[in-house]
Amino acid sequence: MARSGQLDVAAIQREQREFVRERDWEQFHTPKNLVMALSGEVGELVEHFQWLTPDESARITEEPEAATAVADEMADVLVYLLRLADVLNVDLAAAVATKVDKNRAKYPVETARGRARKYYDDDAER
Amino acid sequence: MARSGQLDVAAIQREQREFVRERDWEQFHTPKNLVMALSGEVGELVEHFQWLTPDESARITEEPEAATAVADEMADVLVYLLRLADVLNVDLAAAVATKVDKNRAKYPVETARGRARKYYDDDAER
Amino acid sequence: MARSGQLDVAAIQREQREFVRERDWEQFHTPKNLVMALSGEVGELVEHFQWLTPDESARITEEPEAATAVADEMADVLVYLLRLADVLNVDLAAAVATKVDKNRAKYPVETARGRARKYYDDDAER
Amino acid sequence: MARSGQLDVAAIQREQREFVRERDWEQFHTPKNLVMALSGEVGELVEHFQWLTPDESARITEEPEAATAVADEMADVLVYLLRLADVLNVDLAAAVATKVDKNRAKYPVETARGRARKYYDDDAER
Repeated sequence: MARSGQLDVAAIQREQREFVRERDWEQFHTPKNLVMALSGEVGELVEHFQWLTPDESARITEEPEAATAVADEMADVLVYLLRLADVLNVDLAAAVATKVDKNRAKYPVETARGRARKYYDDDAER
Repeated sequence: MARSGQLDVAAIQREQREFVRERDWEQFHTPKNLVMALSGEVGELVEHFQWLTPDESARITEEPEAATAVADEMADVLVYLLRLADVLNVDLAAAVATKVDKNRAKYPVETARGRARKYYDDDAER
Repeated sequence: MARSGQLDVAAIQREQREFVRERDWEQFHTPKNLVMALSGEVGELVEHFQWLTPDESARITEEPEAATAVADEMADVLVYLLRLADVLNVDLAAAVATKVDKNRAKYPVETARGRARKYYDDDAER
Repeated sequence: MARSGQLDVAAIQREQREFVRERDWEQFHTPKNLVMALSGEVGELVEHFQWLTPDESARITEEPEAATAVADEMADVLVYLLRLADVLNVDLAAAVATKVDKNRAKYPVETARGRARKYYDDDAER
């Protein structure tokens, strides 16, 4: 990362804005379309994992070809997410901080501890 | 962002690692499961946009309630993506730099300019 | 369809069961994996529509190549859904009848009429 | 199913057409929006499975509450898929027959037998 462990969101967004502008693609980058593109890229990421056991999924990056493909798909997901945030003017760092606080309140350590089912039920009810 | 326009990926990953460890949730956080969780969160994000026209989608954050909901879903997507990168030991900043270079090679300005259909066809063939 | 407008679900499921058995793929067809495969196919379907305006999306089948590609993706989605129903022993016709009744109760004509926003809000709250 | 193992696609589509017309929702049911709605419903289905092991996923319908929720989500996916097919005038039974033939050609028994990796690689390259 730019500095150790930092992601330069502003620089990536600036670069993407230019990439899109040069190709006259602003017309396609509505939030609705970008959400679809994000969803399509996540679908491609899912395809790399769908037939793997959980254990195999943990070793997927041991094969160089799969490692590159998975990193590429993750980059696609991130780039579209940052582009969406840019177009909607959403501050992702602030959004993460807010959401993490909500998650701490929603899943107190004492009740959430090791409870897949509880976790699963809560999610399912959303 | 932490510094202006920077996202402190390492700090979020450290925090999430602790959040997960405290709840004894490491057992659930296989890459396979995290990819599914990421996909589920993107599905929730899609639901906010599905009935909107492209123009309405560009104004979605004008309603405070929708703005919060969309920012929350985007944060969920980002947190699961960073968590997946942590578990798989993928350097997202490097992955983005690599992918952006590939995209520049794949979509030269002169041929890609304003061509939705070309863009669409290429994507569809992936 | 087999008879006019009928889909022979039992025949497709029987055929798929045989297809999977011949290739020794039962080991991969857990419900979890099938849900991921379904999700990946929907991602491919989304990619065909992501850059189109709503109007263009309504004319997508006018191009023979796009028409074939979209029909192929829809078939993939349906086959995985029927396969999942088979493995989980879910009666889809009964499930649809039940869900349609719930939808009639959830969206009474008089209050739901032409209200995108109401529709959207309900969905978003699920 | 209507007859044993048959799904009355034409009847469901007719019923949905009426459901949508009564609520003045045709304006929202563009193919683009329906694909997004389909994708959102699949996201909800994924959420029911994301934290389960493959073995647990095979027993998900043993709990009545989970069984109902999963059947409901599968019905939602199917209804949106049938609605999309109706709006695009796609004959799903024909599409499935065509796609199944392509799959037989793409995955010959002798080479595909028990090969997850081969299977996975082919999918990933799409």
